[in-house]
This record gives sequence, structure tokens and C-alpha cells, in this order.
Amino acid sequence: MESIFILKGDICYSKRLGELQTMEQGYLVCRNGCVEGVYEEIPADFQGVEVKDCGRSLIIPGLVDLHMHAPQYSFRGMHMDLELLEWLERYTFPEEVKYKDLGYARDMYGKFVDRLTYSATTRACIFATIHVPATEILMEQLEASGLCTMVGKVNMDRNAPADLTEENAQVSGEETVEWVLDCRKRFQRTKPILTPRFIPSCSDEMLENLKKIQMRYGLPVQSHLSENVEEIVWVKELCPEAEFYGDAYDRFGLFGADCPTIMAHCVHCEEQEIQRMKENGVFVAHCPESNMNLASGIAPVRTYLEEGIAVGLGSDIAGGTTENIFSAMMHAIQASKLRQSLMKENAAPLTIPEVFYMATKGGGAFFGRVGSFESGYAFDALVLDDSRLGEPEKHSISDRLERFVYLNQEIDVKAKYVEGREIFWR
Amino acid sequence: MESIFILKGDICYSKRLGELQTMEQGYLVCRNGCVEGVYEEIPADFQGVEVKDCGRSLIIPGLVDLHMHAPQYSFRGMHMDLELLEWLERYTFPEEVKYKDLGYARDMYGKFVDRLTYSATTRACIFATIHVPATEILMEQLEASGLCTMVGKVNMDRNAPADLTEENAQVSGEETVEWVLDCRKRFQRTKPILTPRFIPSCSDEMLENLKKIQMRYGLPVQSHLSENVEEIVWVKELCPEAEFYGDAYDRFGLFGADCPTIMAHCVHCEEQEIQRMKENGVFVAHCPESNMNLASGIAPVRTYLEEGIAVGLGSDIAGGTTENIFSAMMHAIQASKLRQSLMKENAAPLTIPEVFYMATKGGGAFFGRVGSFESGYAFDALVLDDSRLGEPEKHSISDRLERFVYLNQEIDVKAKYVEGREIFWR
Repeated sequence: MESIFILKGDICYSKRLGELQTMEQGYLVCRNGCVEGVYEEIPADFQGVEVKDCGRSLIIPGLVDLHMHAPQYSFRGMHMDLELLEWLERYTFPEEVKYKDLGYARDMYGKFVDRLTYSATTRACIFATIHVPATEILMEQLEASGLCTMVGKVNMDRNAPADLTEENAQVSGEETVEWVLDCRKRFQRTKPILTPRFIPSCSDEMLENLKKIQMRYGLPVQSHLSENVEEIVWVKELCPEAEFYGDAYDRFGLFGADCPTIMAHCVHCEEQEIQRMKENGVFVAHCPESNMNLASGIAPVRTYLEEGIAVGLGSDIAGGTTENIFSAMMHAIQASKLRQSLMKENAAPLTIPEVFYMATKGGGAFFGRVGSFESGYAFDALVLDDSRLGEPEKHSISDRLERFVYLNQEIDVKAKYVEGREIFWR
Repeated sequence: MESIFILKGDICYSKRLGELQTMEQGYLVCRNGCVEGVYEEIPADFQGVEVKDCGRSLIIPGLVDLHMHAPQYSFRGMHMDLELLEWLERYTFPEEVKYKDLGYARDMYGKFVDRLTYSATTRACIFATIHVPATEILMEQLEASGLCTMVGKVNMDRNAPADLTEENAQVSGEETVEWVLDCRKRFQRTKPILTPRFIPSCSDEMLENLKKIQMRYGLPVQSHLSENVEEIVWVKELCPEAEFYGDAYDRFGLFGADCPTIMAHCVHCEEQEIQRMKENGVFVAHCPESNMNLASGIAPVRTYLEEGIAVGLGSDIAGGTTENIFSAMMHAIQASKLRQSLMKENAAPLTIPEVFYMATKGGGAFFGRVGSFESGYAFDALVLDDSRLGEPEKHSISDRLERFVYLNQEIDVKAKYVEGREIFWR
């Protein structure tokens, strides 16, 4: 049975970095979960099809969050007084330990999934904890939400509190395999992604095992890279044989060369590292709010874009405080302006069309044909009501998009679709 | 007739920079528009007085916005692609010209005052435009709102479009005097403040006139200082005799020495300028979001605090996008972390207690005994419902304050009082 419907409204999406496609009072056709096209008039083939009139609302692709930690949602917005390594030790690890308790996990993940469901995010790459049962609870809840996500049971076998460290590399690998097999049976929209936490938490043996698992099951990978200066120094001490931080993953085949890989942060990447990221096709998850909050710095995003490296945005809950990817867009622009201004760089600040691309098609590419309204893309869409901000009819779609990025509240996201499924309409 | 009532809730205020005073389920007594005190139990004298139970809501002093431009509210959140001087020329001046039209002014200022009324702001220092009639419309509306504000008819007689430039310094002065006299007759809570826009817009003759007016009427002063690098170069060209930007005001007695003065931004102040600000008792209006959005840079707030210079926060609508001073608190912390991280400074980042102080008692001092719950302070108070953010009862008041700063929405401000008057309760 063919499923087909049309949204009518002020449409905005991106095909290429830095360009906005806009159409006032256009028709966006969804056919079997995919975008058929954007039209000024309803094409002859679709006469008679149901049209949902969104009035002057904006219609844009769903937003993609390439990096967030579900178990940290419980303390979002608190504890922003430390830098990364101390922050992990003092606040984050003790919280993640609690996810051994399934009651706690069900309760806290339930709140997280509820908020993510009603956010602007349609796709996300998510870290859980080392605990397989809790991770599967999270995945069950995400599956039920209708969102499309990749979720990682985290691997860590060193340099963490005893109750957040896996017994050894072998046990970590075995549990990972069981988890992968189990969730492949159980979930359609919620995919496993290999998630070695970061080099300081991962022994060589564990990374070797994970590579075998990655190859056997064709899994994507997510981790952290060059976030904080002290962290980078520590990685150098831990892996003196690595040429640079990213090489410590690449030596084990976990840096994109033959598997889709997201590296979060990439704040302090050196030239050689950037070249490797480019060669290997690594995706950068740019998390500007977190990089401010943990005083990590500002990633050289303009360089990544000029090199043709794929960049998406991440909320990094709870180094970032909010799951709202519009805020990540705002912070990305603000950070790029401060980088230019404080570091006397010639790099032009990021623009609204650029961060919009990163938040949609840029990050969406990690999921396939996602994040645009080009024909054949997954029908992930948001209906945004900006009437609260005043007189939409007096401004261009691009001005309205900019204003929405800076001033939106969650409630202004009126409706959300993922693969053509209505997630909510309020 | 004595007016007296009590708010009960989780109370938080500041007496000194960097310290929070907190009391769970405390009683805050208002007597004739002033704070009587904060008590663990209702004192014997006040038994039988009406108690408004705010449950687990936070009760904090009202927030103070030391710098904003009312006529720019109409384009907030848009046009963030240029730096200061081009931004003024391309977007801001053309908008301000429109306030010659009283119908437009009434409409647009009405929207601005409505939003300010329902924000967390209880006190504000506001720029209008050069137009006296429109400025008085704004002041009428503010007076009716119940907020306490200082409003400036702007003075500018050079380097702006013809229709935003006053005829000459004499006319500017005469109109300013008439305006001051008129609004002193008409308004109680809405005070005139002298507002030479910034040095590039103000001839020497005009500044001389304004000083005479300042002295005759004992007026406070507000203006802009050292916001943008190009602006500073221009000021040097325009006033080669000034030792530094601030000296171009000080030569005319408009830099705090004998009149309360706010200087907005102070991003690039040099050592000599900072010393003069300190000697003269200048108030700094720190506007971190605007300084990001216009790529101006990050003010050395830690230095100002160490020097004992008074610092408050400003939204700088519409260089800043939002009137929400909690956002200014967030941006102030984030900016201070980036300044530290990018400029390799040893200066410690700003903390929640510090930015809270700046947003309350720090800026409030410009209005007198304002911005704290110490005895005798004006009863300006907010009731904040943070239940949407989850389980207030499980967290300390200071953690809840931090979370509120990062994650609040306007609707979470449940009630607002100014000088004991209820502005709203929703």
C-alpha cells in the first residue's frame, strides 16, 4: 500500500554547504517515507492527495545530533565549573555508575527519550554506558519513540572508577558481541554503533577486539578526539607510539578508513591529524556549547569545511546543557566569531546557511540520504511556528530561519516527522 | 497605610560578589515596597501577615539589564552577519529612522515593553532614538508596565544618515532639556538618562552642551565604550587629543567622575582607560552575547572585578538577541572560559555566583539599594518554577540556580515584583 501526503508551508532546506533553498507556500511531497520533491504547485500526479496546510510555518529537515550522552541528561545544566578530565571524574563517572541499576536507568532514560522526542532532533548518535541491560532499555525506549538513532554501549577497561570499568578486554568484547546480536534482532530504527569511550579508557587489547567486532558486523564507530589540552597530553603519554591522538585509533583501524566513524569535538587537531581525518573520511561532531562550558576551546571548523571534511553538530549532553540543536547552531556561529576575533585568524565566521547545512545534511549524511528535501531523501521534517517571534509574513525565510535559531523555544517546534512517520503534532 | 506581605520558598540572593545566600523554605518579608528581611520562621511581629506560598519555587532578586536598545527589538535575532560599524549603517540606523513615525513607535515599543514586562528583568537602562515624541511614548508604556527604568533620548549630531542626525548641537541640547523637564513631570518610575550615542556620533559642541544639562539636572549618563577594534581606531582619528577612548568622554565630564555613568561593552579597554574607569567609578555594562554576535571580542571582566570596578550585565538588544538576562549570565560564563582558553590567560573563568551578583546587586547598584534581599533593599523579586527541569527537591539551591541559568524559558518565571508591586503572577 502506497503512503503519500503533502505538507504546505514556507520551505527551507539545503543541498550544498552555505546555500539555502527556500520556497514560500511550497508543497513538500512525502511518498512511502521518502521525499518525492518540493513543488510550487501540486503536480498532476498528486492531485487529490491529502495536503496538511502549515500556514506560514517554516518546514525544514529534521535536525541531526551527532554526539550526545544519554546517561548525563540527568545532570544537564549543572556542574560546569571544571574542565574535562576533572569533570569526568567528579561528576560524570559517578553518575554513569548508577546505570547498573535498571530501575534507575528506566526512569532516567525515560525522561531523556521523552525530551528528545519533543525536541527538534530526528536523528542522533548516542553514548549509553558500559552496561548492556541499561543500554538495551534505552534502545527500547528510543525505538518506541519513532526517532532513528545509533546507540553505543560504551567500552572502557582502564582509568575509570572500578565500577565503571569492564572486567577485561575479552569480557568487554564478548558483551559487545552479544549486545550487537541482540539489538539487531530487536530493533529496526535503533542501530548499534561501536563506542570505545576515548583512548584513556581503552587498552590496546580492547581496541584490537573492537576492530574484529567492527569488521565482522560491519559496524560504524563513534568516539572522542582532541577535545582538551590536558587530555591530549595524557594520550601522548599513554600511547607514545601514536603519531597523534587520532593515530591511536587509526593504528587499530578505528579511525574511519574502512568504517563510518564520528569523532566528537576535534578542538585541537594538528595538521597531520586533520589530513588523516580527511583521508579517512572521518565525520567531525562539532559541539560548540560543550567546548565553551568545559573551557576546551573552539574547534577550527572553517578549516575542516575548507578541507572538505564532513562536519555535523552535536549537543554533547551534558558537556552541553541542551538537546536543542538550534542552540548548537547559534553557539557554532558565536564560537567561530570569537575564534576569529581572539585568534586574529582570517577565517570567516560561520554563517546561518553553513550551520544549517551542518545540522541537517552535513550530519545527516552519516545516516545515508538524510537531512535534505532532495528527491529520495528520508522524509524527516519539522514544522516550525515562528509567529511568537512576530510577523513572519514581513520577513524572508532566511531571516526567519536566523531568528528561529537564536530565539526558538521547544514549543515552537509544532510537528515532527521521521521517515514519513508523524512523531507529534501539537 | 502600611503594605506588607510574605513570600515563602527556596530563597537565593547575593550580598557580596561570588557568594550566594540560600535558604530552603524561607520567608521573605516585603514592607512598603522594601525588603524587611529573610527569615527561617515568620518573626513574631509579622504573625498573621499574608503568606504567599511558592512551594519549591526559587525566589531571587529581579534581574537588572544595564544596556539595551528598545528600537532595535523589532529586528532581534536577525542580521548577525556584520561587525559593529557596518551593522549600524546597514541595519540599525535605517530601523531607528522609522521612530520618527509615532504610529510605528507606538506599535513597536508596545511589543518591546510587553516582552520586557514578562521577562525576568525588573530594572533596565534603555536607549531610545533621537526622537523625543517616540521616546516619551516608550516611557509612557514603561511607566504603565510597573518596571523601573532609565530611558535615554539619544543624542547624535554627526556621522549618521541625515534623518538620524540632529540639526545641530544646540537643537539637540534644547530638545534634551525639554524632554527632561517633561518626563520629570510625567513619570515616577521612568527616569531620563543622558545618552550621547557614542563618540563617533557626537560633536565636541554637543558633548559640552550635554555636560551643562547633566550638571543642571543632576542626570546620570549612559554610552558605549571600546566595543570594536575599528570603532576604537575611528575614535582615535576623530579625537586625536584624547588619551584613550574613554578620555574623549572624560574631557567633557561625561565619564563618571561627578555623575553616575554606565559604559556599555568595554571589550578592548587599555590599562590607562581601566584605571580611569576605576578612579571615576564608571559602571561597566557587560554584554557578552552582543560581543559574540558582532564579533567584537570578550571583555576582560575578571580584571574589572579584581580592580573593584562595578560590573552589571546587559542584553544589548539587538546586538544581543534576547532580553533574557539569564542568557547573559550564561554567555558571560561561556565567554570568560573561551577568553581564558584562547588567550592563555590565567584569569579564572566567571562563576555562577559571580554572574548572579552582576545580574542582581552589581547592576542594581546603579539604581540604589536594588538587587539583593538585604534589609532596606527595594522589593524586586522573581518566583522561578524549575519543576519543568526535573526534581527540584533533589538538588541544592545553587545547583538549581545554575541549571535555571542554562535552561530556563520565559514561562518558568512565574511571578515578578518591582518595589513590592506585583507585575504578574502566572
